[in-house]
Amino acid sequence: MRNTIKEPVTRFSVSLPPPLARELDRMAREKGYDNRSLAVADMIRAQLVEHHQQLGDREIAGSITLVYDHHRHHLQDLLTDLQHEHRKVIISALHCHLDHDNCLEILAVRGRATAIKKLADELIAAKGVKHGKLTITSTGKDLPI
Amino acid sequence: MRNTIKEPVTRFSVSLPPPLARELDRMAREKGYDNRSLAVADMIRAQLVEHHQQLGDREIAGSITLVYDHHRHHLQDLLTDLQHEHRKVIISALHCHLDHDNCLEILAVRGRATAIKKLADELIAAKGVKHGKLTITSTGKDLPI
Amino acid sequence: MRNTIKEPVTRFSVSLPPPLARELDRMAREKGYDNRSLAVADMIRAQLVEHHQQLGDREIAGSITLVYDHHRHHLQDLLTDLQHEHRKVIISALHCHLDHDNCLEILAVRGRATAIKKLADELIAAKGVKHGKLTITSTGKDLPI
Amino acid sequence: MRNTIKEPVTRFSVSLPPPLARELDRMAREKGYDNRSLAVADMIRAQLVEHHQQLGDREIAGSITLVYDHHRHHLQDLLTDLQHEHRKVIISALHCHLDHDNCLEILAVRGRATAIKKLADELIAAKGVKHGKLTITSTGKDLPI
Repeated sequence: MRNTIKEPVTRFSVSLPPPLARELDRMAREKGYDNRSLAVADMIRAQLVEHHQQLGDREIAGSITLVYDHHRHHLQDLLTDLQHEHRKVIISALHCHLDHDNCLEILAVRGRATAIKKLADELIAAKGVKHGKLTITSTGKDLPI
Repeated sequence: MRNTIKEPVTRFSVSLPPPLARELDRMAREKGYDNRSLAVADMIRAQLVEHHQQLGDREIAGSITLVYDHHRHHLQDLLTDLQHEHRKVIISALHCHLDHDNCLEILAVRGRATAIKKLADELIAAKGVKHGKLTITSTGKDLPI
Repeated sequence: MRNTIKEPVTRFSVSLPPPLARELDRMAREKGYDNRSLAVADMIRAQLVEHHQQLGDREIAGSITLVYDHHRHHLQDLLTDLQHEHRKVIISALHCHLDHDNCLEILAVRGRATAIKKLADELIAAKGVKHGKLTITSTGKDLPI
Repeated sequence: MRNTIKEPVTRFSVSLPPPLARELDRMAREKGYDNRSLAVADMIRAQLVEHHQQLGDREIAGSITLVYDHHRHHLQDLLTDLQHEHRKVIISALHCHLDHDNCLEILAVRGRATAIKKLADELIAAKGVKHGKLTITSTGKDLPI
């Protein structure tokens, strides 16, 4: 890492019960972090993403992951129709052919949280969709590194 | 969660970029924490619960959603290297350019749960990745409709 | 290309949606053809040259780019069925919603040239696919840098 | 196919030298068309796409297919930087890990032809990109079916 310039940091101390501190160290190691501080910074960012979700209708980015059987009558047509109606919040969709029957489809989305939640609900409720999940992340603008 | 009896504690210091420290303070206040340390301790506990969720080692499909600043030195190289090492569980990756700095990258994955969890952990721990999430679904075979 | 000597000809009729017939006329005029028939004959020759290009049967990578109107009855189902049948040569498919009607779908492919050519032909021939193109590149292994 | 309503058609006759007519029939069969007329209609649309390209700076859709060795120093950073600069014409990028070294990356693009050609030229010229190709298609709006 060529970052030779000293970047400003805010330093503060955290107090944990010793068993929790040990668990943190083990988890940070298992997840591949170089030190506790980096692991904690990532947790804070993850928590910020969740916290921001509850603050109403912000702009978010995210993904909608669907598994379905494409042989279901009209399902493919229905999913595509729904996606075209909501195309303003869909960047694009990645379609993977898992086996003869099952598709994994992942939509990259961006827009107002309420519009995206509505789209995810409609897609997941479609008959023939076996499982679906909305994953919310941030557009990155409000997450400092 | 207040320590009213004097209990042993492990104290360590965390370094954050100043804007992130400010966001942490605001969130801690909004959530009603008395200080940063208590807020951080709760995040660590929540993260531990998630980390210890037993995924087993069955075959899963899913997605890994990442947001990062592609200007971070070598980050793009690192993420691509990691992905090539783990390419057996990655079907492909969808990359969206959110703005001048931020990328939304979504990997479609399939394989043993432990291998995929490990890959997700390494990608999310990479310095410069602001937020990441592993979304697990099924390959569809074990989900009747 | 004018038939000045009386030569034997095969005559057959072509049915086009009226707007497409008008576009053909305009293009034929702009390209300097005396009539539709001569313009069509030249297109057929050009297409034959492309069709007979020897791809061999080496392993290739590439993309199949399709534009279609997803409202065409059953088209989406048909395209997905075809893709699942040929899923061994399809890595994944990227679907972009261009407007209310039109889709841009790009398949990342890898495998034997003949299998990929056959898949591309079938997809492009599907009724409702407006335009399609197979782009062949290499898997990189035989291309030193 | 449920199209029970009679759609309007323009019918015209095409005259071909008999050997060319036979070749057309064989090619239409090999490509999976139900009849000559459908094969000819697709050729006309393909020719229209090419013809429109020569008419100056229209809005096009398309794909840019790249094969490169991601180990080349800084190549990944450079490609991502270039893509972010031109992000207005890039819908998203699909990245496939072909083997330990080689990547297949396909960009879905849409915008003015000149801007897209410039982007393709810059990406293909990047040191380490082994092969690249711009595939131009239409946004579908100007291609009647």
